[in-house]
Amino acid sequence: MATFMDVHHDMKGITADQLREAHKADLAIEGEEGVHFERAWADPASGTVYCLSEAPSAEAVQRVHTRTGHPAAEIHPVPLSVT
Amino acid sequence: MATFMDVHHDMKGITADQLREAHKADLAIEGEEGVHFERAWADPASGTVYCLSEAPSAEAVQRVHTRTGHPAAEIHPVPLSVT
Repeated sequence: MATFMDVHHDMKGITADQLREAHKADLAIEGEEGVHFERAWADPASGTVYCLSEAPSAEAVQRVHTRTGHPAAEIHPVPLSVT
Repeated sequence: MATFMDVHHDMKGITADQLREAHKADLAIEGEEGVHFERAWADPASGTVYCLSEAPSAEAVQRVHTRTGHPAAEIHPVPLSVT
């Protein structure tokens, strides 16, 4: 398992409810791909959404997002992190 | 205060130590700008670094990053988040 940050650029105007629904849809099927989406952050003004996940691969992350109707524009492994 | 995600694209090859040092440099002066950097994630392969912060403005985030020598390429307010 590895940590990934994926980015969507096409979510202009996304509401809190829409973000919650999209995340819930991902969570509902993520187990089938061995993925877990930990957090997501959205900037409705620019339409940017960031999702942080634990997953076996970027492809697995994308499969979940594609099946739920919102494929990511970029998916980066982020093996390093600090707090 | 608001939540921001900023992105750096020019950190190819960044090591765990370098990420820790960069983050520590930000933490050392962030209070002067009213900013707090909560977490940062790095993809050394593409040189992408994401920083999550609480701050009064995107400009304040950028002032900290600029003073410590690593200005961000993008800074997005992320008023919405889900877990």
